[in-house]
Amino acid sequence: MSGSENMMRAIVKPDRSPGLKLIQVPIPKPGPREALIKVAATSICGTDLHIFKWDPWAQSRVRPPVVAGHEFCGHVVEIGEVVTEVKVGDYVSAESHIVCHACAPCRTGRAHLCQNTQIIGVDRDGCWADYIVMPVENLWPNPPDMPLEIASLQENFGNAVHTAFATELTARRVLVTGCGPVGLMAIMVARAAGARTVYATDISNYRLRMARQVGADMALNVSEGNAAQTILADTQNEGVDVLLEMSGAPQAIDMGFKLLRFGGEAALLGLAPSGIPFDINNAVVLKGATVYGIVGRELWATWFRMRNLLASGLVDLNKIITHRFALEDYDAALRVMQGGQSGKVVMFPEGMDR
Amino acid sequence: MSGSENMMRAIVKPDRSPGLKLIQVPIPKPGPREALIKVAATSICGTDLHIFKWDPWAQSRVRPPVVAGHEFCGHVVEIGEVVTEVKVGDYVSAESHIVCHACAPCRTGRAHLCQNTQIIGVDRDGCWADYIVMPVENLWPNPPDMPLEIASLQENFGNAVHTAFATELTARRVLVTGCGPVGLMAIMVARAAGARTVYATDISNYRLRMARQVGADMALNVSEGNAAQTILADTQNEGVDVLLEMSGAPQAIDMGFKLLRFGGEAALLGLAPSGIPFDINNAVVLKGATVYGIVGRELWATWFRMRNLLASGLVDLNKIITHRFALEDYDAALRVMQGGQSGKVVMFPEGMDR
Amino acid sequence: MSGSENMMRAIVKPDRSPGLKLIQVPIPKPGPREALIKVAATSICGTDLHIFKWDPWAQSRVRPPVVAGHEFCGHVVEIGEVVTEVKVGDYVSAESHIVCHACAPCRTGRAHLCQNTQIIGVDRDGCWADYIVMPVENLWPNPPDMPLEIASLQENFGNAVHTAFATELTARRVLVTGCGPVGLMAIMVARAAGARTVYATDISNYRLRMARQVGADMALNVSEGNAAQTILADTQNEGVDVLLEMSGAPQAIDMGFKLLRFGGEAALLGLAPSGIPFDINNAVVLKGATVYGIVGRELWATWFRMRNLLASGLVDLNKIITHRFALEDYDAALRVMQGGQSGKVVMFPEGMDR
Amino acid sequence: MSGSENMMRAIVKPDRSPGLKLIQVPIPKPGPREALIKVAATSICGTDLHIFKWDPWAQSRVRPPVVAGHEFCGHVVEIGEVVTEVKVGDYVSAESHIVCHACAPCRTGRAHLCQNTQIIGVDRDGCWADYIVMPVENLWPNPPDMPLEIASLQENFGNAVHTAFATELTARRVLVTGCGPVGLMAIMVARAAGARTVYATDISNYRLRMARQVGADMALNVSEGNAAQTILADTQNEGVDVLLEMSGAPQAIDMGFKLLRFGGEAALLGLAPSGIPFDINNAVVLKGATVYGIVGRELWATWFRMRNLLASGLVDLNKIITHRFALEDYDAALRVMQGGQSGKVVMFPEGMDR
Repeated sequence: MSGSENMMRAIVKPDRSPGLKLIQVPIPKPGPREALIKVAATSICGTDLHIFKWDPWAQSRVRPPVVAGHEFCGHVVEIGEVVTEVKVGDYVSAESHIVCHACAPCRTGRAHLCQNTQIIGVDRDGCWADYIVMPVENLWPNPPDMPLEIASLQENFGNAVHTAFATELTARRVLVTGCGPVGLMAIMVARAAGARTVYATDISNYRLRMARQVGADMALNVSEGNAAQTILADTQNEGVDVLLEMSGAPQAIDMGFKLLRFGGEAALLGLAPSGIPFDINNAVVLKGATVYGIVGRELWATWFRMRNLLASGLVDLNKIITHRFALEDYDAALRVMQGGQSGKVVMFPEGMDR
Repeated sequence: MSGSENMMRAIVKPDRSPGLKLIQVPIPKPGPREALIKVAATSICGTDLHIFKWDPWAQSRVRPPVVAGHEFCGHVVEIGEVVTEVKVGDYVSAESHIVCHACAPCRTGRAHLCQNTQIIGVDRDGCWADYIVMPVENLWPNPPDMPLEIASLQENFGNAVHTAFATELTARRVLVTGCGPVGLMAIMVARAAGARTVYATDISNYRLRMARQVGADMALNVSEGNAAQTILADTQNEGVDVLLEMSGAPQAIDMGFKLLRFGGEAALLGLAPSGIPFDINNAVVLKGATVYGIVGRELWATWFRMRNLLASGLVDLNKIITHRFALEDYDAALRVMQGGQSGKVVMFPEGMDR
Repeated sequence: MSGSENMMRAIVKPDRSPGLKLIQVPIPKPGPREALIKVAATSICGTDLHIFKWDPWAQSRVRPPVVAGHEFCGHVVEIGEVVTEVKVGDYVSAESHIVCHACAPCRTGRAHLCQNTQIIGVDRDGCWADYIVMPVENLWPNPPDMPLEIASLQENFGNAVHTAFATELTARRVLVTGCGPVGLMAIMVARAAGARTVYATDISNYRLRMARQVGADMALNVSEGNAAQTILADTQNEGVDVLLEMSGAPQAIDMGFKLLRFGGEAALLGLAPSGIPFDINNAVVLKGATVYGIVGRELWATWFRMRNLLASGLVDLNKIITHRFALEDYDAALRVMQGGQSGKVVMFPEGMDR
Repeated sequence: MSGSENMMRAIVKPDRSPGLKLIQVPIPKPGPREALIKVAATSICGTDLHIFKWDPWAQSRVRPPVVAGHEFCGHVVEIGEVVTEVKVGDYVSAESHIVCHACAPCRTGRAHLCQNTQIIGVDRDGCWADYIVMPVENLWPNPPDMPLEIASLQENFGNAVHTAFATELTARRVLVTGCGPVGLMAIMVARAAGARTVYATDISNYRLRMARQVGADMALNVSEGNAAQTILADTQNEGVDVLLEMSGAPQAIDMGFKLLRFGGEAALLGLAPSGIPFDINNAVVLKGATVYGIVGRELWATWFRMRNLLASGLVDLNKIITHRFALEDYDAALRVMQGGQSGKVVMFPEGMDR
């Protein structure tokens, strides 16, 4: 599909300004412990939008030129000289965080907290391209019958799984604040884990409708009526056992902790504006709450959990895929994401009619 | 229904010999912190059979005369002078273990391990009667619309819930060895908690059929063919993540640990013959296993979990109730239990046609 | 010592204004499940100062008239009619939180989070008196040879023990922010538990000197020089494994989380002004931190831990007792506490020369 | 020191029979991700004795010829082409278990349970030689001032640390059954972690004397008098909170569980004869015990814990080193170990008078 023998298409952030561009770049070569993968499907994450828009976070972190994208699946087409774990033809997805394997977090089962992490599509070339090179340690074998779009979504699903599994969900009342794709997937995990009740909040009715479709018992728009009061009443004024905070919105954080019962658990994934006012006394201290900060995916406990949730049919990620595009239509795909009227958006480098 | 104003019917172990007898006894009076409950439904447990048969365990523990039975629900008809927690008319079930509230386990959230425990129907008068007196701390309020037979089963359900919740079940492969009523309920809990796969084993095809009906993915008769090999193969030779041992059979314990994966968790509820040969090296030490001994129900975390599992419909205990009798037909009821072709058997002191 | 047969001295908050007053009040009578205790020693807590000063918190919570004080020890002189757990002459301390035993937290091993709690000296009559009546469940037997001042301090020591044991301390770098009495006791617990290094911060050189005396490896005044930088450097820029926040000062909370390593644990006991700006992203979410809100003492796991820490000599509370007064000199005692140049201050109703 | 340019001395198991032999072998060459280390000190473990004696376990596991030994420290003298983590001159110890990095345990923080593990000195050439090649991932940097014998002991110390840290030790009563070197080190860890009381048992008075020297409060010979009764009485008949089983002796396992309190924790490292009779009901199930099987060291959490325990001076491994030999005196060294009148025995390839 690429223009010449050694060239491929890639969607890149070419310079320090808004936008992305599809250009021809050389196909990368795998190092001794790397593999070259032909990308079959790749999906869009909120982080990609930050880079597309070139917002302050992107300006502080990304150094162009860089190929965008970090969620994908594909097939191994070439391996480095000392690779034994995978072979040509293998169908794989990938952990997007390339960690150092040498720091204390890496050496104690907390590699997701490695401070030397490089994220593909952010800190080094990503997967919105015909090919990508990955360290072989970062590859995850997929079952042959897993649909491409599901395989691509796994990276993002991992955020939801990591957050949800930080807490005990079975027979619990769970509140998910924020119903973007990761919030929707968290709802599905809570449901799969046998939550007694799953409450969901957002400010978009489109997303709340999706929340109900993926299993929320109650999905409330916090900008209309008194959502907090409704949820509290439904818990017989006990509050929820678990808060999964996926929005980063100060109001959601505030409401979420108010609704948390005494002795409850909160897992926080959403990123708030820095320095928000926080009633730490009533939210955490006097409440006897346990709070978990969540980043990335546990390497690789989260991936094994995903494998089992998907293999058993307990979670069906198809429910949150709303749009599919050919890779070259990335601009339309990004605009859909920006519009807020979507779940996950997947792009196919090999076209739509495989 | 009782023969005279102050008398009631009770099924008692009258002396140190096999059998039970329905006789008239005085209706007990509640003490200052006790309540008198009119029994509406009461169910049969394996322990009751031991007492009925007067086996060595029963001979060593039970001091007749004593009213049998420890699983029940009913309505409060009289309360002691300093009782405020319940009132006449309340619909309640009860924790059967009456603990001392003063020992170290009682004072540190482990009252189920109190060594001064008195169990109703074993150490003091039980519930196979028209009325029973209970300490008010042991009562559990039921929702008004909970069926009597479900309310009675909760005590026993608590054993399954306590065992299953000792481990992490969601997205895990779970093996339940022993498909008596508690094993069947453990299967339902594992299913509700989002286990990836639930394997069940027993030696009774009747029970294995029930295991499939309540949700086991694979239910195998260990006396026919190579059950262990079949299960291991189905886990891609990784083994199961969790063992819930409900049988006490030495062969099941041995097979269960063999099937447990390295680093897996085992919760043991079944009581084995003492001094069985045990390959502790391979079963536990070299396997890096974590093993939990389980007894009773956590007071009262288990009951809250039950409440949520039942209220949400995640577990439907009706599926394991196979027989219903009037209280006076206790002999037929016990014979059914002994036959092994049953799930739970429930008796109704107020008759079958309420 | 009291003025008449049935009267006793008590230090009371007589009305809704600053100050406390020593007056004669009737000796209370124990109810059926209560005990009357002759107070032998009683100590002063920060909460008592709030009530003495009649600050906004005190105004919102306390309803005069009420006898002050909640830390004490003494001897049982009379018991209610259904009390079997203690007898006249027993030497006891007491848990100051009188809980409801009926709510979900009380029934699931989290009674310290009971929302129906009554605290002696705050919500009902306290122990700054010749006698106090306590529910028998709240009494804790002391070994006969425990000094009176140590026995009195246990309630407060429990706050430190509860906070410190929420985290893993052995072989860990621990930062204690705030070196008031509870902070000092937390330092001693961290030391006893085999912390690798204990860092302490405060703004009072008096307290920092005490911090060093009780075992802090490094005790730094955050208002002088760059304490955070010094601590970080001493950890080879890894940060501390554990934060025990005992001050409630916004600057301490901010610095504490900045110094916490990725994946670290923070236990928060100090009460901050409400709505402080908090960098929840960097402090908790991106750091992958686990945060525990701490209130009161675990009933009764904390007391058992205290028993063992004191019995073994691992912690010597004498080190933090700086002043002793007769009860009638309460005004001088409170003034010492207010001055900030003290550790714990103990008062003796039976006088100083027992 | 070696006989020729490319040759070195090595103590090998030459064939399938008892004994070991010091011979000249080629100095191994490091692969791309390996390092060559000049061995400075190496210590003897019970496993080495099994190989020396060629007992049934050794016969089933070891395939001669193989260089013996798995505990050591030394200096890097050559590195492979893609090694960046260490450089020539670095002072290192090593994890003896070379794991596959690819299996589920390896990928989920449980690499110590990898079933593809190769142990140096058992499954591949070990460290009783002038040089050894190790995968760079297995190296652990030592502080420059750490004595050679301490650095060598770390691998074995890790077994004790892994076992002890599986349980909660602070303010707890801890029983260590078996006072060989690993048991002695477990006593030191329990002491460092602030155990309330440390009980130790063995059948050797020599070892029990060492147990007292390293901090056991009570060290009892189970073959003389009633050790169990003495320990139980000292716990006021409550039993111990924690059992650290380091002997593998059936009588010790039996006694240890009998002494364990209800709800206690047991960590098992010792390897028992297979199929011992075990009273699983009373030891585990009815006791509500939690049991941890322990193997190897957690990679690398255990090593970080060791680093902190040693750096802080909380544990002084010198206390258990009783004998030092030149490497060529290995036969005398092994005989000392076999005699049972020793702690750890260390050998120095570079001689005794460095």
